Parts: sequence; structure tokens; C-alpha cells
Amino acid sequence: MSQYTAPLDDIRFVLDDVLDAPSQFARLGFGDASPEVVDAVLEEAARFTSGVLAPLNSVGDQQGCRHDPTTGDVSTPTGFKAAYAQYVEAGWPGLTAAPEYGGQGLPHAVGTAVSEMINGANLAWGNFPLLSHGAVEALRQHGEDWQREVFLRPLLEGRWTGTMCLTEPHCGTDLGLLRTRAEPRGEGDYAITGTKIFITAGEHDFTDNIIHLVLARLPDAPPGAKGISLFVVPKFKVARDGTVGERNAVRCGSIEHKMGIKGSATCVMNFDGAEGWLVGKAHGGLRAMFTMMNSARLGVGLQGIGLSERAYQNALRYARERLQSRSLTGPKFPEKPADPIIVHPDVRRMLLSIKALTEGSRMLALHAGSLLDVVVHAHDPDERERAETLVSFLTPISKACQTEWGIENTYNALQCFGGHGYIVEHGMEQLARDARITTLYEGTTGIQAMDLMGRKTATSQAAGLKLFLAEVEAFCAANESDSHIAADVATLRAKCTEWSELTRGVLGSAASNPDELGAAAFDYLFYSGYVVLAYWWLRASVAARASGRSAAFREAKRETARFYFARILPRTLAHAAAIRAGATPLMALEAGHFDG
Amino acid sequence: MSQYTAPLDDIRFVLDDVLDAPSQFARLGFGDASPEVVDAVLEEAARFTSGVLAPLNSVGDQQGCRHDPTTGDVSTPTGFKAAYAQYVEAGWPGLTAAPEYGGQGLPHAVGTAVSEMINGANLAWGNFPLLSHGAVEALRQHGEDWQREVFLRPLLEGRWTGTMCLTEPHCGTDLGLLRTRAEPRGEGDYAITGTKIFITAGEHDFTDNIIHLVLARLPDAPPGAKGISLFVVPKFKVARDGTVGERNAVRCGSIEHKMGIKGSATCVMNFDGAEGWLVGKAHGGLRAMFTMMNSARLGVGLQGIGLSERAYQNALRYARERLQSRSLTGPKFPEKPADPIIVHPDVRRMLLSIKALTEGSRMLALHAGSLLDVVVHAHDPDERERAETLVSFLTPISKACQTEWGIENTYNALQCFGGHGYIVEHGMEQLARDARITTLYEGTTGIQAMDLMGRKTATSQAAGLKLFLAEVEAFCAANESDSHIAADVATLRAKCTEWSELTRGVLGSAASNPDELGAAAFDYLFYSGYVVLAYWWLRASVAARASGRSAAFREAKRETARFYFARILPRTLAHAAAIRAGATPLMALEAGHFDG
Repeated sequence: MSQYTAPLDDIRFVLDDVLDAPSQFARLGFGDASPEVVDAVLEEAARFTSGVLAPLNSVGDQQGCRHDPTTGDVSTPTGFKAAYAQYVEAGWPGLTAAPEYGGQGLPHAVGTAVSEMINGANLAWGNFPLLSHGAVEALRQHGEDWQREVFLRPLLEGRWTGTMCLTEPHCGTDLGLLRTRAEPRGEGDYAITGTKIFITAGEHDFTDNIIHLVLARLPDAPPGAKGISLFVVPKFKVARDGTVGERNAVRCGSIEHKMGIKGSATCVMNFDGAEGWLVGKAHGGLRAMFTMMNSARLGVGLQGIGLSERAYQNALRYARERLQSRSLTGPKFPEKPADPIIVHPDVRRMLLSIKALTEGSRMLALHAGSLLDVVVHAHDPDERERAETLVSFLTPISKACQTEWGIENTYNALQCFGGHGYIVEHGMEQLARDARITTLYEGTTGIQAMDLMGRKTATSQAAGLKLFLAEVEAFCAANESDSHIAADVATLRAKCTEWSELTRGVLGSAASNPDELGAAAFDYLFYSGYVVLAYWWLRASVAARASGRSAAFREAKRETARFYFARILPRTLAHAAAIRAGATPLMALEAGHFDG
Repeated sequence: MSQYTAPLDDIRFVLDDVLDAPSQFARLGFGDASPEVVDAVLEEAARFTSGVLAPLNSVGDQQGCRHDPTTGDVSTPTGFKAAYAQYVEAGWPGLTAAPEYGGQGLPHAVGTAVSEMINGANLAWGNFPLLSHGAVEALRQHGEDWQREVFLRPLLEGRWTGTMCLTEPHCGTDLGLLRTRAEPRGEGDYAITGTKIFITAGEHDFTDNIIHLVLARLPDAPPGAKGISLFVVPKFKVARDGTVGERNAVRCGSIEHKMGIKGSATCVMNFDGAEGWLVGKAHGGLRAMFTMMNSARLGVGLQGIGLSERAYQNALRYARERLQSRSLTGPKFPEKPADPIIVHPDVRRMLLSIKALTEGSRMLALHAGSLLDVVVHAHDPDERERAETLVSFLTPISKACQTEWGIENTYNALQCFGGHGYIVEHGMEQLARDARITTLYEGTTGIQAMDLMGRKTATSQAAGLKLFLAEVEAFCAANESDSHIAADVATLRAKCTEWSELTRGVLGSAASNPDELGAAAFDYLFYSGYVVLAYWWLRASVAARASGRSAAFREAKRETARFYFARILPRTLAHAAAIRAGATPLMALEAGHFDG
């Protein structure tokens, strides 16, 4: 089975040396987030995830969840419930939440690191608490006072969990098509009726109650996405004073049989006149939905990193142990019957690709987490708005790239095992199967790409891109005379110039043909992702050199950065060419002639 | 569940219009392979694969094979054995084999088309008969007369099946490490003792006997790969006169639990002093092994195409049916609640990528099959040698690219389904899991890359590349003034020039540092594959225009070729840059510092 050790050293390096998080924590007034406290939290998270969650990863895959069609109950794999009890006992659910609702008020940057560890240890398990964050945010930002009062504390204490009930059989991406109805019942509550599918953690045995955030249509709703409202629908009814009452008319009809994340319950939820309460404005559900979505998208991005880290650790161990053939330059371990496969260039190519994409993604993700802290805690409203613009620009990049790279990384790690990677007992194939969901849920890669190209670029005159490029240019200007990285600084600058040109090109051609946005989106997103990571790798290289870390650590950062620029960043050449090719090669063929 | 219809139209197009196979069949003396006969064979293969094998695909995945630890017997999924009986009854096993051994003597080009259909219909089932080909070739080319006499006919009639027993727990790629022993027993036979793993179809319930081709060491064997010999070891002993005797001391110890191809039996085979006979020269097993391997590698390449075709058909159907959001340029089906997702550029990007890579691969594969016919049947020894050099050059490209593209294609097809792609009932995730084995077995992609870069390029002074480039240049010269494709001809020529330069560059730097071969190999292989496909797409474009096929068909070929040049071929830019980056970025980091 695959093993997992939380990558504490690298997380500390990113927080302390790359991002200088301790200074930011102090500046933003995280009084409790002293370096000692943060360190203790990370240590404890490492202990819990590596020691408790990681060994349950294969158990979840083998057993899956079980659904009782008579009662609608869902039972989780052996050990999952007990692990959740430990998680609640230790206070993890409220780690980054405001103390006024029982949270611990620690920085999102720290919460991001903890989430990565949870995902690396046990992705399927991590899905049970994951969506509570979205429910909490929706209620906190859009709910009435009594709703915040009644629901937030149990959710943040982990006594209840939350869900996001969006998708229906005939509509996923296009929520304007949804049919679930909400009928007013006169006491301020509504009767919710409809079927939702793909509801992660819609039913389980972890907690006494489950709080569903449900998109539905009011009777007077206009058609399409403008007629969607958000409702809170508890499994057991909750009165305005917080009293928990009888079972609500919501029930899990079945659970899906999936390629992976088998330990997660993916539920069909049937609402049969269930009691629900409007959250936010009538017909204002889409905005609340995006609140949940953005939180969930960064969270899914972390799943890609967690899986990649686990995949890397196991591939590296195997590459050092497995003896097969001699180095092309002569035996490196002549006393052994063959050399370990890590001597072979192509095995190194795979390992370094995983390492470069995973550690690069970690910087991107922890940076996004630290931006969330600025959004919430900075005194200066301009600084908050800048951080908001930046994190909203980086969200589709993080979600899509980190998950697609997660698939690439688990692919390469499995490949390092040769035929043994295909065998269940080594655990590598589970990582590949689990990774496969991450580019689908919470918005496919194509949807992220359109979010970046449309809403975050075309609609906003590339506001996020401009902020990001200014940050990169400030770094380049400060480091252009550093002989260690001067050549790479020049490369990065050239890529940034090209990025702006490509952006102008797409927006220009889209003015007369909106399909140009859709045609460029995927390649534009990956072009962006690779340049973003190039920036972070240069910063890692500089930060490692200046740090007091071991010579081995500094060498690893320097050489991985070199590898990234030599072997990964050139992928932008293909993406740029595809963007420049425009929409015609995609749109010319008649839909009816695709099998012509 | 996913559906499959054999792509007869496109197969006919490639054979008739692109390759002009009928002329070659006539020229090579395939008297029985008249256009009518070939057409009837293809029709019948389509009927059998689409009608009999395809519906069993999900059955195999759900049931898997079962191993009885008491008897060592393996039972196959419901319907597999009966389908095999039909396969034998219809004479498919000997389709391309010489009539002197009971074969039907039809061209390999036709056999290639049939194999693609089998793999598209049911990859796991197809693995049972697949390795008989390798066993037949090894016995035909290296066996003694009595061995050919006794074994070939039952294998070619499908009454028996064959296996290739190479891998051991500690050695896969590096067969020089193998430990299975062969002790002479005085009557010309040997006692074979050892454990082989990953033996496809090592045990099953299809046939009365199973013929294992086993690599083992004689007592006086020199160490390493030069001390390997090949033995034929039947499950039931076979005397020199063909009499079948008692059970041999070879037994299936267990079957593997795998990510996919669950309907295939992947066996641990224990040889416990089993009676075996030397095939070919003592210590000459490696050469015989390559005979088996090359046959199997082209066969595995076809698995990638078969899976891709099935994935495409289902993704296309879904993209036409699934209604979600409106086209960016305004509603295309205003009478429906939303447009089918095929209107969205990013869905088209995925569909066209699959289509371009799959149909391109089909041309490459059928060309390779037609080269095998030249190797066997051409009168002119120079022509035979040229074809042999060319097919041996194209084999690693075909195997690696077609299987890696198979993974990409099944990935994209699943992605077209959104979250539904992750659900077992749609059948798309099975295709992705099944595809994952193809880049591992019969030599990983890294091994194919080294085969191309080392044996097929460095060792042979790029003999195969030169032949291929001459063929491409002849085509370019003949078509440079065709205004429809003149720009693409120029692009292809430029890529060919760069291909030669890259080759010289790698060979030059490898002279002083052999690691340069390994460092370039993967990217060199894919650079090669994309240029090879560009050549075939131009030929398809020209052939389609000249053909009498429907306007829709001609449009599809023209636009898919255009898409390929605009959106796929630019991947060569990234591969070329990676090749030029050389070995240092891969080799600089100390093996001990990869987690440093």
C-alpha cells in the first residue's frame, strides 16, 4: 500500500522562507498565530493525517460506503467515523473560523497547509468535512442572524457537517436548468421538492445532523439562472431557537459507484417537501452559490497537491529500491546486481516533473491561502480589494492546474512502478483513480478555463492579470542582477510579455467572435499556470539560497527550479501556438460530421 | 454502459484510399485477398466484435477472473469462453498465418484492422488470444521442425493458446537478472523451475492446453542477458509426435488484482521442474524474446487505438445529447432548453483531439501492418529489408504513442461526460482504467523511447529515420504545388528538417555522455510521433479529396487535418525544447537529495 508522511519541511519552507508568512500573520493581527503556535499546529496535523488518516486510505477504497435502501442510511468504511471523532475532538473543523462562532481564528495559510495534508493522507475521508466550509461561508455571508446563530457553531465544531446541493440529473454546469421547487409554507419556511445528484457527503454516519444548502426555484422565479434561490435544509429540522426536531423529508436514494474516492459517499438526495429556509435574497442563489464554489474550488485544488505529494513519496522510494539495468554511463552500484532505477534519466524526468509541479503548486496554493487572510483581515480596503481580485484570478488557475497536474503526477508516479503500478496492492493505482475526480467536480477544467478567460479576464479588463504581472515584475526588477537566476529572470519577463500579448490577442478577436474566448480558454489557462509556477520557482530558488536550510535542501530547490525552466516551462510554446491558432480549427467542422 | 461499433468506414478509407492496399495485396501475391474477400472479412469482424465481444466488455470488468487456489484453475467471466469458441469456429486465430500451418494467409494489414476491432470491443478478452501470435512467431522462426509441426497448428486453430513467460518478481525490463532455471534431463528435454509473474492468459478455461514460452537459464549460462534461453513448456505435456500427455508441473499460483482489464487473467505461474524443450539456440533466448516482443508491441499499440475509438464514439454521442448552456455566439437550438455541449469550443477541442489522434494512429498502424506484409511476402530482398528497417523503426513509436494517446483520449472522452464520466454505469471510467495498462506492459513508454533512441537510431545510424524521411519528402515533392495543402507541406518539411537536426544533436552529445540518449528519449519519441502523424494527416487530406466518399466524410478529414496542424502538431515545440535542454537538468540533482 502507498505510504504518506506529511511534507512538513517543505510547507515550513514555503510559509517561512518564500512567503514570509510570520510577518504577514503579525501584521494582520493574528495574535494567536505565533511561529510556535503555527509550528505546533502543523506538527499536530502531520501526526493526525500521517498517523490516523493515511492508514485508512486503502480501507476506504476497498470497502467503499454502503447504502441501506430501506432506511436511506449510509455507513462509512471501518475507522472513518472514529477518525472524524478525533478530528472534531482536536478542534480541526474550526481552525480558520472566526472565534465569535467558536472558531480558532488561525490564518487560512495554515488551514491550507492542513487541508493539503488531509488530502494527501486520505482524499475520500477529507471530502466529508470539506464541504462544510462552503456551507459555513454561504450562511455567514448571506444568512439571516438566526441562521448564523443556529447553524454556524455546530458546523464549525464539527458536530454537524454541511453539503452543497446544486447538481440535478439534467443539469450540472448549467444550473439555470434546475427544477427543484421551493413552495412557501406561510411560517417563513419553504417546502423543498426535487432530486439532487452527486451530493458529496449527502448522507453518512459521522454526525447527528447534516445541513444541506440547496438551490431551488421559488414559484415566481424567472426562468434560468436568475430564478435560483438558496435554502438551508437540515436532515433533522432545526427551529429558530436551535432546537433540533424531527426528521426532515430529505433522504438519500442511492450512492454512486465510482472510479475512485470510494470511501466518499456521493449521494442522490431526494427532497420530498422538506422544510427549508431561504438563505439570502429570493432569486439571489447564484451569488451565494459562487461563495460556496470559490471556497470549494481552492479546496479541490489542494486535493491535487495532496495526491501528488503522496504519489511522489512512493515513486521516489520505489525508484531508490528497485534494481533494474545499469546506468548508461556505467554501473553506479557495482556491488548490487543492477542499479536502482533512479539512475536512469527517464525515471528522473518523471520524478522531477512530479516534484516541480507539486512543490510549485504548493507555493501557489499557500499564496492563495495567504491572500484569503488579507481579504478577511487587512485594515486597508484597497489592500483587501487587491487581494480579492488576485485570489479570484488565481482560483481557476489553481483549481484546474493543480488537479490536472495531480492527474499527470499520479500518472508518472504509477509509471515509475512499471507493471507493479497497475497492481492494487501497491496503492499507486488508487491515487490515479482518486485523482480522476478532481478535474470534474466543482467545475470541470473547461469551466475553470472559461471562468479565467471570461469572467476573470474579458469581463474585468484583465484586472487580476495586471496585478499579478506587477508583482512578478517587481520581483524581476529586484533580482535581475542576481547572476544565479538572471537568465531565468529574463525568460520569465519574456513569458509575461507574451502572456499580455496573448491576452490582448484573444480579447481583440473575441470582440467580433465570442467563440474565440472558448477556443483559447483551455490553453490560455495552462499557459497562465506554467508562467505562474515559473515565478514561484524563481522565488523558491532565491528563498532557498538565502535560507539556513541544509545544503541538500538548497540544492534540491535550485536544481528543481532549473529543471522546471528547462523541461516544463517550454510547454507554454505549444499552448501559445494553440491560442494563436484561434477558433476556426475548432469550429469549422459541422457538428453532424464529427463521425462523417 | 459504453457502446462500440466497429469503424468500418474509416478502416476502408485507410486501406483503400490512403494506403492503396488492394494494389499491394495483388502485387505481393495475396491471391485470396481480393477486395471482395477483404471486405467480407472486415464485415464479419465488425459483426463479431460489435455484436459478440462488445457487450461482454463491462461483464468482464464487473466479474473479473476467479482463481481456485486448490486446483490453480482460472475461470473467466460469463460469456468469455463461449465468445472464444465462436472466434475459433470462425477461424480468426489463423487469419494472417501461413496456409501450411492451417492459417488463412490473409494480409497483416487486414489482421491489424481486425485486432483494432477486437480491442475496441473488449480489450480484456482480446488479451487471451493476443499472445498466441508471439508464441507462434517464436516457434516458427526459432523452433525445431517437430516443434513447429506439433505446436503451430493447434495454436493457429485456436485449440491452444500461447503465453510469454518473461517477467519475474525482481526483474521486468532487465531480464538479465532472471533466475528461472532449466536443468537438462537427458532426453533432450529440460526441467524448468522458477516463478514468473504478470503472465497474461497464463491460465484460463478457454482451451484444453496452454503453451508457455519461458525464458530461463541453463546450468552453464553466462551471467546477464547473454545467458538466457527460451523454452516451450505446455500445460499438458506434448510428445514429439504431438500426443498430449499428463499435466505438466506448471501451475497458476494466483491472479493479480488490477486497476483494469479485470476480465484478463494476469497470472503468477509457478514452474516446479516442469518439462520444457529448448527453442532455438542455448543462450539465444533474448533474440527469440525480441521476436515475440515486436509482435506483441504492435498488438498493444492497437489496444490504444481500439480504446480511443470506443471512447470517441461514446463521447461524441454524449456531446450531441447532453444539453447544457448556450453557445457563446447565441443559441444554436433555441427550441431546446439549452444547446448540446458539442457547440462549446472546449468540448470540440477534446473531441477533435481524440479524433485526430485516433484516426491518425489508425493510418500509422495499418501502414505498419502493410509493412509486415512486405517483410514476409515481397520478392525483392532489398524491399523486404527496407520494410523490416522501417517497421522496426516505427514499432516503438507506434506502441508508445498509440498507448499514451489512448490514455489521453480516454481521459478526454471521460472529461466530456463531466461528473457522469466518473460513474461506473456510463462505462467511460472502465476505458480509462483499461487504457492505463497499455503504457506499462510489453515495455513501458520509457523502454520504447530508449529502443527508438538507442537501438533504432544511435546504433543503426538512424537508418529507419532516413527511410521514413525519404518517404515523406517524396510525398511533399509530389504535393508541394497543391494549393489546398501547400502551407502544411511546408510545415511538415520544416519539422522533418528539425527532426534530423535534433537527431544529430542528440547523437553528437551522446558521444561524450551516453545519458544524453536517455535524457532525450521520451521527448524524441513524441516529437517523432507527432511528425509521423502530421505526414499521415496530410496523406488523409489528399486521399479524402480524391476519393468518392461523401462530402461530410471529406469535410471531416480536411478539418481534422487542419485541426491537427493547428492544435496538436505544435506540441513538437515543447518536445524540441526539452530535447535541446539536454541531460544536465535531469542528472544534476543527487539521487539522495530528491527529498532534500
